[in-house]
This record gives sequence, C-alpha cells and structure tokens, in this order.
Amino acid sequence: MNIYEERTARVRREMEKSGISQLMVTDHLSIYYLTGIDVLPFERFWAYLVRIDGENLLFANILFALGDTGMPTVTFNDNDDVAKIVSPHIASGVLGVDKNMAARFLLPIIESCPNTRVVLGSNCVDNVRAIKDKTEQELMRRASQINDECMEKLADFIHEGVTEKECARYLNDCYAQYGCQGPSFDGIISFGANAADPHHSPDDTVLKDGDCIVIDIGCKKDYYCSDMTRTYFWKRADPEYVKIYDIVRRANETAEAMVKAGVPLMDIDITARDIISEAGYGEYFTHRLGHFIGMEDHEKGDVSAVNSQMAEAGMIFSIEPGVYLPGRFGVRIEDLVIVTEDGCEILNHVDKGLRILGV
Amino acid sequence: MNIYEERTARVRREMEKSGISQLMVTDHLSIYYLTGIDVLPFERFWAYLVRIDGENLLFANILFALGDTGMPTVTFNDNDDVAKIVSPHIASGVLGVDKNMAARFLLPIIESCPNTRVVLGSNCVDNVRAIKDKTEQELMRRASQINDECMEKLADFIHEGVTEKECARYLNDCYAQYGCQGPSFDGIISFGANAADPHHSPDDTVLKDGDCIVIDIGCKKDYYCSDMTRTYFWKRADPEYVKIYDIVRRANETAEAMVKAGVPLMDIDITARDIISEAGYGEYFTHRLGHFIGMEDHEKGDVSAVNSQMAEAGMIFSIEPGVYLPGRFGVRIEDLVIVTEDGCEILNHVDKGLRILGV
Repeated sequence: MNIYEERTARVRREMEKSGISQLMVTDHLSIYYLTGIDVLPFERFWAYLVRIDGENLLFANILFALGDTGMPTVTFNDNDDVAKIVSPHIASGVLGVDKNMAARFLLPIIESCPNTRVVLGSNCVDNVRAIKDKTEQELMRRASQINDECMEKLADFIHEGVTEKECARYLNDCYAQYGCQGPSFDGIISFGANAADPHHSPDDTVLKDGDCIVIDIGCKKDYYCSDMTRTYFWKRADPEYVKIYDIVRRANETAEAMVKAGVPLMDIDITARDIISEAGYGEYFTHRLGHFIGMEDHEKGDVSAVNSQMAEAGMIFSIEPGVYLPGRFGVRIEDLVIVTEDGCEILNHVDKGLRILGV
Repeated sequence: MNIYEERTARVRREMEKSGISQLMVTDHLSIYYLTGIDVLPFERFWAYLVRIDGENLLFANILFALGDTGMPTVTFNDNDDVAKIVSPHIASGVLGVDKNMAARFLLPIIESCPNTRVVLGSNCVDNVRAIKDKTEQELMRRASQINDECMEKLADFIHEGVTEKECARYLNDCYAQYGCQGPSFDGIISFGANAADPHHSPDDTVLKDGDCIVIDIGCKKDYYCSDMTRTYFWKRADPEYVKIYDIVRRANETAEAMVKAGVPLMDIDITARDIISEAGYGEYFTHRLGHFIGMEDHEKGDVSAVNSQMAEAGMIFSIEPGVYLPGRFGVRIEDLVIVTEDGCEILNHVDKGLRILGV
C-alpha cells in the first residue's frame, strides 16, 4: 500500500464509523492528500468519490489535463451539466459531502439524486488529516523553521518610517528566497491601534514611537503551512501594555505546557482564558485559543471552550491567546505545537521575552 | 440613495423577477459590493440577508470587529451554532443562497428551516455585478493599464537562464511597486512544453532557445482585477508554432471585433472556435473563449459555446483563445473588453504581433 492508499483506507474506516457508504471529496487539498494529484480547479468541478467498497472515482474537467493517473476517471467539459455527469454514479442511501462543497454543485446534485440523503461527511477526511503522519510532521517542522528565520529577519528590517505594507512586501520576498510557494495566508502586520483588530490587513500606516507591532505570519513550503505571531514594541512600551504582554505570554506558555495526548482541547483554551480573565482582560480576548493547521492555515479542528475532543498524538495546532483594546492596542503570541504522547513539540523558537525594537 | 443602496435595489429587482423573497449573500465580495463593508471571514460565517421588503440583516462573528456600520446586525461568536443563529430570521417559502455558500453552513440551515425551500439565488447578485457601473469600469481600466505596463517590464526582464519562478517573483514585485493588493490570481508563466497545460504553475524550468513563453497574468488594484495573456518566443520560433500563433491571434482579433451589445455570447465563442477548427487545431482549443471578471478574476458569466445570453453594455470579460499541443507547445492570447452599445473597448494595449525575445 502506498501512502495514498493508506490514507484512503483510514478515510474508509471513518466512513464505516459514520455510516457513510460514499463520500464526495471536493476540497482540492483533500484530493491531493488522498491521491497525490494536484489540481487547482478554480470555479470548475473536481471531485473524488470515495466508496466504501474501494471502487473510487475521479471527476475531472478535461481542461485539467490529468494525463494517465491510473485511476478511474469520469471526464467532462465546460459545457456539461455537472449534476447530470455526477448523478448516475451516486447510489441511493447516504452521500457524504465536503464541508466546503459549493452550493452551485451541491444543490443541483441534491435535486438530481432524490433517493439519496446528503449529509456533511468531511469529518471522515478531516479527522484523518488532523493526525499528521511522520512525513507531514517533518514538512511542518521545516515550514515553521523558515517562518522563524523570516520573523527574525523582519524584526531586523523594521525601521523608522516603515509602513505595514513595506513590511509585508519584505516578508513575501523573504519567503520567496526560501523557495516557499508563498505565504500560507495574508500576513497580518499591525502597528499601534491597528492591532486592536485581530485580522487587520497591512496598509500604509507608518510606525510611531510607542507602537505595538503585531506580526502574524506564515509560509507554505512543499504544501505545508506555518503560522506564528509575535508582538514587539517600537522605541518604548507603555507600562500597561507591558503588563498585558506578560499576561498574554503567561497564557501562551501555560497552555503550551499542558498540551499532551488525552487532554481535552477545551481545557487548554479555558486555562489560557482564565489567566487573561483573572487579570481583568477576559472580554478583550475575543477569539478561540487555537486552530488546527496542515496543508491549510486553518484546518478542521480548534482549541476552543466548546471543543471537548481530546488531544491526540500527531495533531498540530496553534496556541494564540491575545488581548485587543479597541482603538488603542493589541497583543497576540502564537506558536504551533505537535501533540505527543507525553507533551508537545513546539515548532517555533523565536524568543517570547518582551522585545523593544529600535533601541 | 448611495451607491450601495442603488446596487441593493438592483438586486431586489432581480429577486422579484426570480420569485426570491429572501437572499442569503455569503460571498464576501458581494457583501462588500452591496454594503461597502470589507470582511475576510476565513472559515467563519459572514452573511448579508437581503429581503424583498428592504429589511436587510447582517450576520457577523464578533471577531470581525465591525464597529458601527449603521446596519441591523446579528452577532455571534465562535462557540455559537450558526444554523441556530440564522434560522429564526429565515421566513418560510423560498430562500435564495449564494453559489459558493459552503455545505457546512448550507446543509445545517436547510435542516433547521424545514418549511423553507432553498434554491440557488446568486444570479440575483451576479447579474447585477456582471454589468459594471462607471466607477467600476474606471477601476478596471486602471488595473489593466498596470497589467500592460508590468507585461512590458516582464518581457524586458526575461533573459538567458531565467526560470519561470523567477519571472513570477519579478512580476509580483512589479505589481507591488504599483500599489496593487497583489496578483488577481496565481500568474501562469510557462516555457516550452509546460505551456501545453493551460493552468501550469511556474516552476524551476529554465528558458531554452525556441521555447514559447505563455504569460497569463493579472493584478488586483483597489479591489478590481486585470487579466491578460501574451505568448512570446525565445531566440527563434518554429514555423509550425508561428502558424499556430497567427491562427490564435486571428481568432482573438476576429472575436474582439464582433463584441457589441446584443450579440449572443455563444456566437463570439463559436466564431473564434471555428477559425481554430478550420485551421485543423479545434481539438487543441480545450476551454471556453472567455470569462467575466471584476472584483474576482473569474466571475459568473462566460463566453462559451453554450451561453446564449446577449452581451450587454457594461459587461467586462476576457477573449482568450488558445491552442495546446500536449508535451510540445501552447499559445494563448487574451485581452479584457468592456462591451459598449456599438462595439467594445479593449482594455489591454500590449502589441499582439509575433514577438521573439532575446534577439
């Protein structure tokens, strides 16, 4: 069995558990994960029908120019009606579909298959993708190592008069020099009050003395993503901000110290959240503690107050507490971790001590 | 009425025509188009419920930090169940949804609203977005002007020993210097046989004498996209390739010359296709002639052999015939055009005469 057959066999076991006999995988990364075939379908239909009996089937627009994949494939062209192409291959009973399957394919297929109940089935793939095998762990380590180096370079680059956008551009060049496919998401580089929006996009804001600098960045290397946040200060740091920085760092480090196979993910979120709440800033920590990551920056699975799932060895997720004071300030500190049987491996090694740049 | 209210009123007229009394818009660009509010929701739920009676409603995760938008908004957080948040606001009858609405939101909402029939309704927005107003046309002109300049710079940059990836990196820097938000899609730069795959991704292939160079690129500037393709040759061009180049150029120019309000879009595709077929290369023109474009590189609407829709003034789409000889060669020539009452305005001005670089 090659790696793709092994992964597909794991998916079939999940399908058995969920009572799903046929699963329409439309996420191009999941298809790559299960077949090794990398297609960016844009708005076109591209799917892998995984059947419990192992008679799997690809659906591919001829434009994808797949060549000989050695896999049974139904081809069609831009003028074909996708539901008409697909429905003859769907059995009655239950059809699982991907969480991201688009309504423009999903609704016509539901209509064309009146004897089939369509349910969300992507957990059958996502639960498998959530546990990274050794090959994947090594790729994740490498992507985070590059991210560490680029974070240090960016900190050295930041200078008087620089704008957020100039930092973002510098960073993307840095990733390119390391042979990355690109950033794993649009990097967040926020100066001062901009940092109060956790998802601020870099703009022409110029760095000012006393600004916090939130840098939330990641690259994609050989299909796998990194993602890390550090918060620095420029020239000086307001004592209140230093206090908040320490609270967030403590939340980050305490949470990371408790990660271990068998620990409920919600307990990790709650522990970090309690630290921030007890310090009086609970209402300003407006998001969950972390998200799973792999071939996508945000994958299925999170570290949140409502996820009672247990950590399992091989899971990789972020630990990223933050505090955001509207109109004033923000701080976030984030690492990626791989869960192990007796703890976790932290993938980021950039120092988390308070760092004031430009002095 | 401000521009957003005008656009929303146009959407309501489309809803009336389609018998849709409530429309769940989840495409973040459509929401921006209709409200001026720009949110990148990542995997979170973000929607604008447009109602025929004008009582519209936003659904926003508090993490989006919208501030005061002056619009009625239902907020929720990461721990909430989206279907439970949404379903109380959905009336029985028909609910239209966006073509890209993800199954993870769509299937639970269908289940939570048993008295509501859910249908594809994004045409109500897409038909409005397809006809660009004057403001949008001006932004599209500007994005294509930048693309023209960057294409010329890239042609000057191409040199002995260069790789596809180096060209792609040069181009992205070029866009950044023009203040673009970035490329409008992952640029395609293909040397030699790589060009036989219309969607080839730039890799480490080094330019060789006699290679064709397919450059299919675009930028995003102030939310609007450009997209153009030119095919050059390096050092020399095989006579067969020159012949094919001329056929493709003739298909491009003949198609552009017939664009005009009132012409069926399929006629434009068929005219270009016939030229290529009559020259004996029909089977190697494997895609439709063009796609609509605006805030996205590929928007709803295309110029294909099955689209009987008429061209209307204000539509903007690509005209991009191509011929792909597997394992050997590819050529594509693409411009964007704005349909006018008596013809069209071609947005790209880079010369289409045969150009051999490096001589």
